Amino acid sequence: MREQNDESFEFDVSVVGLGAMGTLMAHALLKQGKRVAIWNRSPGKAASLVAAGAHLCDSVETALVASPATIFVLLDNHATHEVLGMPGVMHALANRTIVDYTTNAQDEGPALQGLVNRAGGHYVKGMIVAYPRNVGHRESHSIHTGDREAFEQHRSLLEGLAGHTVFLPWGEALAFASVLHAHAFAAMVAFFEAVGASERFGLSVSKTARLLLDTSRFFVADALEEAARRLEAQDFAGDQARLDVHVDAFAHIAQSLHAQGAWTPVFDAVCQVAQRAASMGYGNQDIAAITLSFAHDKAPGH
Amino acid sequence: MREQNDESFEFDVSVVGLGAMGTLMAHALLKQGKRVAIWNRSPGKAASLVAAGAHLCDSVETALVASPATIFVLLDNHATHEVLGMPGVMHALANRTIVDYTTNAQDEGPALQGLVNRAGGHYVKGMIVAYPRNVGHRESHSIHTGDREAFEQHRSLLEGLAGHTVFLPWGEALAFASVLHAHAFAAMVAFFEAVGASERFGLSVSKTARLLLDTSRFFVADALEEAARRLEAQDFAGDQARLDVHVDAFAHIAQSLHAQGAWTPVFDAVCQVAQRAASMGYGNQDIAAITLSFAHDKAPGH
Repeated sequence: MREQNDESFEFDVSVVGLGAMGTLMAHALLKQGKRVAIWNRSPGKAASLVAAGAHLCDSVETALVASPATIFVLLDNHATHEVLGMPGVMHALANRTIVDYTTNAQDEGPALQGLVNRAGGHYVKGMIVAYPRNVGHRESHSIHTGDREAFEQHRSLLEGLAGHTVFLPWGEALAFASVLHAHAFAAMVAFFEAVGASERFGLSVSKTARLLLDTSRFFVADALEEAARRLEAQDFAGDQARLDVHVDAFAHIAQSLHAQGAWTPVFDAVCQVAQRAASMGYGNQDIAAITLSFAHDKAPGH
Repeated sequence: MREQNDESFEFDVSVVGLGAMGTLMAHALLKQGKRVAIWNRSPGKAASLVAAGAHLCDSVETALVASPATIFVLLDNHATHEVLGMPGVMHALANRTIVDYTTNAQDEGPALQGLVNRAGGHYVKGMIVAYPRNVGHRESHSIHTGDREAFEQHRSLLEGLAGHTVFLPWGEALAFASVLHAHAFAAMVAFFEAVGASERFGLSVSKTARLLLDTSRFFVADALEEAARRLEAQDFAGDQARLDVHVDAFAHIAQSLHAQGAWTPVFDAVCQVAQRAASMGYGNQDIAAITLSFAHDKAPGH
């Protein structure tokens, strides 16, 4: 699945920046049979990749020239600008695509896109929704934004880093990344908090973690699926999971946790949100109606 | 799969209390080919079950006598005591098992067990980890406690209400139910909060809900699986997901949410928990080490 291009390239993709994530990405692409060129400020980091078949370039310029698309995975935005300022790089950007997975602030991506575009290149910003162990996993997801045409041209390559990808315009991509991570990390930390609390009841933390995971997996997955369905259908009928019944149950759960001296700020916030939604009149609706209580015209004053 | 018993019973199971949950349980058992006797204070509620093959008893006493096990799904503990006080009930409890799915407070179950045991019966307390739509689902889970032998005798029957079940002693069962529900409901409410916040960025709430669910499903499931593994192995090496990196990322996410005026008490609590764990010295460990920061000797004063 090599990129179709007028030019003939010696490599399918270059990877610039061989920290943990860049190295894993390059390995994943090599495993998929891609011809991979690499560059890193400290060439020592390239040894395992060279052994696996990657070609080590002696400059960023060479890496850019070698492939139609170059993946950047650098330390931060400052490092990206340093690399773009290296000799010959601006000239080498012409008709090339940078796919930038470097973590940076919200306004830094569009600025980089402008810089690359002015040099005649294309800029795609990527965010991988995966820990290093799942780079290259077909169940992993990524979000891309920037130059849509360049993204579409290299989509199959990028799907080698995360099996599912979605392209969104800048504003939507950054907003979606924020709410996605807020949800995902809250789900994780709520799990740590609950497992941590189990110790107060004299339960084994490691046994509880496994049992809790097994017992809640289908319940939570089904509840979120049902919530997505109800939000799509705007159907909040209280036939399954009335909010006011939950508010009472939450109070009992919080009481039993606090009675053991457990510190549960995440669940306490959950109780606060549910109580507030009930007091706003959603009590006889489905628990998913809590979502509506966050609407901009219903927010508490700041 | 009828219960093996010395006595020969006219029915496999009786269901007392035909609210939404009791009715669904009776229907699920009928669908599985069980011979089901039912009773309800208002017999009108029994019509659909009688049409589906259930036998309507004229008293709780008759329902108890008809089957080796009787499922109670009543309004509350008060209702349970009322039913147990009905004519002939105490006498009919001898050599019978009550499986009580009535929601009640933590100390009420053991008191009911004592009452039933003194009448020569067995008492099993059940908690179904499922919304009504998933009663009888083979992926649903339940927790049981009380008389273990009686539970084992009726295990296959109870697995007809939720495919997976675990029996724990009283204290463990109630503690586990608390932390399980704290985790599960926090995961749900965090999802509602994140989807609700997306509206502040001008995103469509219903489209975001679906995309967020699809994009986060594997990421969260894998992260929790990894956390359970790390807690079992006591392995918090920071090779994948260092806590201090998360603390920085969380701060950026919170900032972008707040900049849009989003009200995010759940995610704010998540930030607070992560920051506190990092300040306690877990920063260079895996994010799952947050669990350790909740230990009893590490709690903030109350």
